[in-house]
Amino acid sequence: MKATVLSGGVGGARFLLGVVSVCRGDNVAIIGNVGDDIEVLGLHVSPDLDSILYALAGVADEERGWGRAGETWNALMSVADLGGESWFRLGDRDLGLHLVRTQLLGEGKPLSTVTGRLARSLGLSSALLPATDDPLRTFVETPAGTFSFQEWFVARGHRDEVDAVHYTGARNARPAPGVLEALEDAELIVIAPSNPYVSIGPILAVPEIRAAIERRRVPCVAVSPLIGGRAVKGPADRMLARLAGGTGPAEVASCYGGLIDVLVIDEQDAASELPGGVRPVVSRTLMVDDDARRRLALAVIDAAAAVA
Amino acid sequence: MKATVLSGGVGGARFLLGVVSVCRGDNVAIIGNVGDDIEVLGLHVSPDLDSILYALAGVADEERGWGRAGETWNALMSVADLGGESWFRLGDRDLGLHLVRTQLLGEGKPLSTVTGRLARSLGLSSALLPATDDPLRTFVETPAGTFSFQEWFVARGHRDEVDAVHYTGARNARPAPGVLEALEDAELIVIAPSNPYVSIGPILAVPEIRAAIERRRVPCVAVSPLIGGRAVKGPADRMLARLAGGTGPAEVASCYGGLIDVLVIDEQDAASELPGGVRPVVSRTLMVDDDARRRLALAVIDAAAAVA
Repeated sequence: MKATVLSGGVGGARFLLGVVSVCRGDNVAIIGNVGDDIEVLGLHVSPDLDSILYALAGVADEERGWGRAGETWNALMSVADLGGESWFRLGDRDLGLHLVRTQLLGEGKPLSTVTGRLARSLGLSSALLPATDDPLRTFVETPAGTFSFQEWFVARGHRDEVDAVHYTGARNARPAPGVLEALEDAELIVIAPSNPYVSIGPILAVPEIRAAIERRRVPCVAVSPLIGGRAVKGPADRMLARLAGGTGPAEVASCYGGLIDVLVIDEQDAASELPGGVRPVVSRTLMVDDDARRRLALAVIDAAAAVA
Repeated sequence: MKATVLSGGVGGARFLLGVVSVCRGDNVAIIGNVGDDIEVLGLHVSPDLDSILYALAGVADEERGWGRAGETWNALMSVADLGGESWFRLGDRDLGLHLVRTQLLGEGKPLSTVTGRLARSLGLSSALLPATDDPLRTFVETPAGTFSFQEWFVARGHRDEVDAVHYTGARNARPAPGVLEALEDAELIVIAPSNPYVSIGPILAVPEIRAAIERRRVPCVAVSPLIGGRAVKGPADRMLARLAGGTGPAEVASCYGGLIDVLVIDEQDAASELPGGVRPVVSRTLMVDDDARRRLALAVIDAAAAVA
């Protein structure tokens, strides 16, 4: 089954482990979020692409939930001792990747080419595609002002309520090479259990990506990131409550109007009907281990088969 | 005693520990070589300035002879795994400094400002001045072709004989702010026991620095980097043999024609007279420990007092 998955960082990356295990890696294409990319210490960091890279390469730190296993922090300690920019936590092994990426970008290679090269070096068999090679960045409007995603999320600990989300550069952003083909060739399109506003939203903000999903001839299945109306981690529930008026399946589905056929929700969120003719499918969505991830991926495939 | 010292990297840095110990740090100004600066992985690395920084901050790795103590190498391993540029050995703690330096240079600050800030952050009381803020780079002509200093020294293991040394950019290079003042205010000018061609040569290739030393009204004392005609480490002896015709005190003194009053040499190199009226002073120049470094610094000061 050829699946193309839209994904944010950590939660999406865990879900992708299940998809790759069920579908085989070379049948899976991943369209990753770049809205939270950031320049730190002169380096181009793509946190969501990297979470996916590290998860699929088996080098992610499972306990910490982000970054690389066996990580050390000596470069950043040295930066801090010298009064440099140390608010964004970059480990030593992680830094190595950012150095390579930044140098290749500096040579004029597009992010998609660089990401493909990193993915191959790390042994990935799936295609990992940034949504776009163009500069697209997520900004949030809050009562305290407008912030870039990472400034709000990391530096301010995402404590400010979000009144609106903007994706600068989205209107003129072209899908990266391979993205439209991956959507057109897929037998199944999946939206990972990532934050609809800051992880999936920036991908869907690229006009040609949204249009390709709107005109799909295969099922599109989203997995809700909420369990019992609560985010497993992060601010998705607070954002939904404020921006969509609630944290139920209906509000999650409303984020993907016209784009999905099925919303996979947790047992704790059972819903009988959803707006826009979206079919709710109940499963267990907490991805505690490999088995749970596989079960969730299989539930997605079954749900797609049922609407096909 | 206000001393201004021209210095290369490791050997010079060890000597400076003695000078600082004898003269007190705030009486010492250091003019450092930038001819072997290099851009690696997009980072501006100043190996000689850093060797001095690390030595005077007490964080240098004494055993390895370069870089920082307690160093780890995870970023570079990650770079190598990803097929990136890993021939130039950058440790994690060291990388932190290069990231901070590169970011500040990218903001348009000159190298001298950045170096001063790094030196203060590391607690140095001496002024550490790059010879110039302008791009001045050392190239060596060899039978195998012309190479940048680091390509020859690190990548090719300085195995090629050197037929000539060039300092590109030197003719138009201005002394960095503070350099001429440090030479004019000094009661003693010292040339550290560094390689005359690739460590001290690039400093003296800045026309206004050479002119300032030529018109000095205080003693200028050089310490020979050779012991018994041999370099303690590195290619100084081979270069002197080929470029100056020998590895004795006379050949070392010939590198500094018109610039020095005294050449401090090792007991193994005793010489009765030197060209250009340079006075030879015999001492023990192998810097095995703090005491040896202090003794050598005191020998330099005594020699200066004798010619003053």
